Amino acid sequence: MTRAPTPADVREAAARLAGTTTRTPVLHAPALDPHTAGHVLLKCENLQRTGSFKFRGACNAVARLDDDDHARGVIAFSSGNHALAVAPAAAAAGTTALLVMPSDAPPAKHAAVRRLGAEVVTFDRYTDDRFAITASLAAERGLTVIPPYDHPDVIAGAGTTTTEFLDQAGDLDVLVFPLGGGGQLAGATLGLADHKTRLVGVETAVGDKNRRSLDAGERVRIPVPHTIADGVTGEVPGELTFPLIQRRVDDVLVVDDDEIRAAMRLLFEEVKLVVEPSGALAVAALLAGPIHAPGARVGVVLSGGNITLDRLHHLLN
Amino acid sequence: MTRAPTPADVREAAARLAGTTTRTPVLHAPALDPHTAGHVLLKCENLQRTGSFKFRGACNAVARLDDDDHARGVIAFSSGNHALAVAPAAAAAGTTALLVMPSDAPPAKHAAVRRLGAEVVTFDRYTDDRFAITASLAAERGLTVIPPYDHPDVIAGAGTTTTEFLDQAGDLDVLVFPLGGGGQLAGATLGLADHKTRLVGVETAVGDKNRRSLDAGERVRIPVPHTIADGVTGEVPGELTFPLIQRRVDDVLVVDDDEIRAAMRLLFEEVKLVVEPSGALAVAALLAGPIHAPGARVGVVLSGGNITLDRLHHLLN
Repeated sequence: MTRAPTPADVREAAARLAGTTTRTPVLHAPALDPHTAGHVLLKCENLQRTGSFKFRGACNAVARLDDDDHARGVIAFSSGNHALAVAPAAAAAGTTALLVMPSDAPPAKHAAVRRLGAEVVTFDRYTDDRFAITASLAAERGLTVIPPYDHPDVIAGAGTTTTEFLDQAGDLDVLVFPLGGGGQLAGATLGLADHKTRLVGVETAVGDKNRRSLDAGERVRIPVPHTIADGVTGEVPGELTFPLIQRRVDDVLVVDDDEIRAAMRLLFEEVKLVVEPSGALAVAALLAGPIHAPGARVGVVLSGGNITLDRLHHLLN
Repeated sequence: MTRAPTPADVREAAARLAGTTTRTPVLHAPALDPHTAGHVLLKCENLQRTGSFKFRGACNAVARLDDDDHARGVIAFSSGNHALAVAPAAAAAGTTALLVMPSDAPPAKHAAVRRLGAEVVTFDRYTDDRFAITASLAAERGLTVIPPYDHPDVIAGAGTTTTEFLDQAGDLDVLVFPLGGGGQLAGATLGLADHKTRLVGVETAVGDKNRRSLDAGERVRIPVPHTIADGVTGEVPGELTFPLIQRRVDDVLVVDDDEIRAAMRLLFEEVKLVVEPSGALAVAALLAGPIHAPGARVGVVLSGGNITLDRLHHLLN
């Protein structure tokens, strides 16, 4: 098993990423205060380069490779935010990226990744084994695989969302994250090493793999969930991320698609931000009510904003 | 004629507004860099309290009133961003607001203003004289009128967008603003008093009252323009704002509705921000091409984000 990342890895990642990642703004959201009885601050990772926090982990992992690795390049499989992040992360480190993407992903996504300088190889998601394709391409060309979350450098990079947030906003009583593979929440456990902050993850009710795993005391596999939150449809928590989450996270809450819709609408109309369904999970939990923290400083992470206007309109109508 | 505001008024306004207005974020927009050949920084007044820069001017004007004025309250007529700004500006100063709004304004707008603590009086925009109604209510109840732009304290408050922007971003070679009544651009001329920054305003091609007035050397009245930019449909530049603009502004550019649409789409999809049509005028000018500034630091103001998802979708389809 790979080494577990440490709080020192997050501090080093923060120094490494300065000037490459965006120091995303923190906004007070008065429209959300009444839902917690506290003071709600939003960390806007939807305004991060490539439109999501994934750029932090991808950049850190690619930057940590040595010159020989950089000479050969990196590879990743993703049709989502990780793909959008790896392409410019490779460019920033002076190397090249090969993206393995489903052939039926929206053509705009293929084009976006190519525009970012990456090569794209497609596979049929119903007949091909993406793991096998990725492994064979990696072996054949000597490429380094950059996984979407279950990697120490990806987790450490994702942890910089938390250290940056605390640096900007001061101490927080509660910190609430969208939760999928767990890279960002696992990173937060490291970023919060010296803090008493209550740490909360939010996943979908139909995709509650982390909550089930915590209840079972071990990683549980669930069927692929059907939800509008297309960024968090994994079937099992990460091998590296789960133990970190298990050790430190105070609560895992769940929300349904309608609660996610309400969150995206509020963020659009009241806060003037474009947030994708999985990026709005934490706000959905606030609106659903279970986070009651009178007088508390409540930090909430918006993890991504990659959604078209047509899709947002369709989802909310 | 009322006294003209000065650079000192803007500095005093900045001190007065600290802690009440939001210090809105400045974002680098790589997607816009190629359109100018420079480095484009966005000042996000769409993320200002009440969803537009209007909160700055309204707050400053209301805060400058004396105790007797505050005991009686303020009045404004507006169906737009000024109405949304005056209501909480009054609350922040511990006074009350009466808003004179068209009876056929969207019920959601009436409700929003009432939720913000203001009283609403409606008028029929086809038969009633809103100026006469406002003046008679003001006289009857001893209320102070807060105009939307043509007032020294409103202009000075609006000028804090510029001083705050420079404070956050450092010196700028070019600064581009949406232009309607001219409060924000007139305020910018004061905020830039000690700077060589090239100052540019952008209005609609069908509502080019400022450009025509500059050409004529005096304020010119135009017919009410038909444009999607509903925040800038005034017929004549302000009495106070025009001389300031005339003295200092380097260029007034015009854009059409399709250029505004392209700007709103780019801001949604690439920058993840909700911006209303009049708020996107400056970005529309960048996309249309006339601002070529190789290597320059180009500041661009997004002045407001008050638009529903349905309307945005409708406008862009």
